[in-house]
Amino acid sequence: MDVMAYLGLSGRRAIIVHHDDLGITDAQNRAFRALPYRSGSVMVPAGWAMDGLASGTSDLGVHLTLTSEWPAPRLRPLTPGPSLVDRWGYFWPSVAQAWEHADADEAYAEMRAQAMTAFQLGLEPTHMDSHMGTVLRPDLAAAAAKVGEEFGIPLLVPENLEDLPVPDPIRAALATVRAGLKMPRVVLVDTYDTMPEEDRRSAYIDRLSRLGPGIYHVLHHAAVPTEEGRRIPDWAKRRADFEALGDAEVRRVIAEFTPLTYAAIRDAWRALR
Amino acid sequence: MDVMAYLGLSGRRAIIVHHDDLGITDAQNRAFRALPYRSGSVMVPAGWAMDGLASGTSDLGVHLTLTSEWPAPRLRPLTPGPSLVDRWGYFWPSVAQAWEHADADEAYAEMRAQAMTAFQLGLEPTHMDSHMGTVLRPDLAAAAAKVGEEFGIPLLVPENLEDLPVPDPIRAALATVRAGLKMPRVVLVDTYDTMPEEDRRSAYIDRLSRLGPGIYHVLHHAAVPTEEGRRIPDWAKRRADFEALGDAEVRRVIAEFTPLTYAAIRDAWRALR
Repeated sequence: MDVMAYLGLSGRRAIIVHHDDLGITDAQNRAFRALPYRSGSVMVPAGWAMDGLASGTSDLGVHLTLTSEWPAPRLRPLTPGPSLVDRWGYFWPSVAQAWEHADADEAYAEMRAQAMTAFQLGLEPTHMDSHMGTVLRPDLAAAAAKVGEEFGIPLLVPENLEDLPVPDPIRAALATVRAGLKMPRVVLVDTYDTMPEEDRRSAYIDRLSRLGPGIYHVLHHAAVPTEEGRRIPDWAKRRADFEALGDAEVRRVIAEFTPLTYAAIRDAWRALR
Repeated sequence: MDVMAYLGLSGRRAIIVHHDDLGITDAQNRAFRALPYRSGSVMVPAGWAMDGLASGTSDLGVHLTLTSEWPAPRLRPLTPGPSLVDRWGYFWPSVAQAWEHADADEAYAEMRAQAMTAFQLGLEPTHMDSHMGTVLRPDLAAAAAKVGEEFGIPLLVPENLEDLPVPDPIRAALATVRAGLKMPRVVLVDTYDTMPEEDRRSAYIDRLSRLGPGIYHVLHHAAVPTEEGRRIPDWAKRRADFEALGDAEVRRVIAEFTPLTYAAIRDAWRALR
């Protein structure tokens, strides 16, 4: 039996509306509290991680972080691995730099510390995913999967890897890691803001409406446009995500799916693996 | 010759309007940019430390941090000393806890890392002071002084220790450490908000007006009351500091002093020690 069958979802369209980058700013956390969608993942090394995000209805994961892309707010690892940081001790700003430098053992220690700390902070993490996809270097993904095994929480490696800008052998290696995860196939649906404004809403609704049976992880980075929130270089996209998820028509289309949580996936994964 | 004489300040009233807690929030940094006073100190482990605070006119120090008092934003050390952190790996929330647990060697390593990182971040630090006064445990102050000697930046241990809530022998030990610093006598003038609102302004102006010759470090924690800024539990005091320093009468009283920078003190200290 696979996870879809176990959950009674065979032939259905299941959705997880997933809030990335929680904990990085107050603006991101405010958006999470304001929206009705309870799934998301927390950047454990960030300053606002311990901001009352966990509650009875929250479905939080560890947003495994090995990169920190802006001058401020900027993050440092929990562990001292020298391969994980730039000359100032911050995480590498880009995926390319992290992939060039990160030692898999040091990354394993760091990801393990992030997962352990998430439990210690009371976040009750149900899953792990990856900030900027940095964990998708195949050996890093294998290290993250090992952390997931140790803590009993599944790692998301999305089904749709075709857009990952890497050579085919790397994609193949990653597919092998994914096969070992024994996770259901989860398709990542990109954020709202990927095209000119006037077409955005209808294209998004179109994209969601056309999806067939499966599990969809609908990614967003909603943030409220406070003064602090607007300091993030891509704040306009984050505001667009926030507004999209407040749009009645978008909500209606989302409500046509069966709502799913990572807690349910985790429990099925534990039962079946 | 002492520093006052070296600087030609004998018999004068010199002032440093000093912005504490820079780097902790966007709101704190915004206030620094909005005010005309250029001295302050940066919490190097904080997320907003690398936020363009340094400029030709900035006079920045290292706000040596061994405590992190709120759930969010919450800080972790740069170094792995286990005596410096609570069970979640954050700095101790209170001075009492830090004083109970902190090992002086581990604190030395952490303060050294904060100073070195301040240089690496381009903050060009001119001095070091202490977040919440935690560094005033005498052996920690001695460790901080050692960091200052290594990096050629003076440590502030205020002249007026009478309000420090510690037994006399501790105060005496601290006075001994301070005597070894060869720093000028710097009197800390408390923040604006220490009494009921209606009396505050006139009491503050009174306090400044009565000061005799000497060097005065006028402490403040100005923050703008943005949504993020208001998440800090004592935001009302921070806003009061911001408003006080925007008040024409307060500015007039401050302008009666001779403006001084830690850069000038540092240079005199280097020349004379």
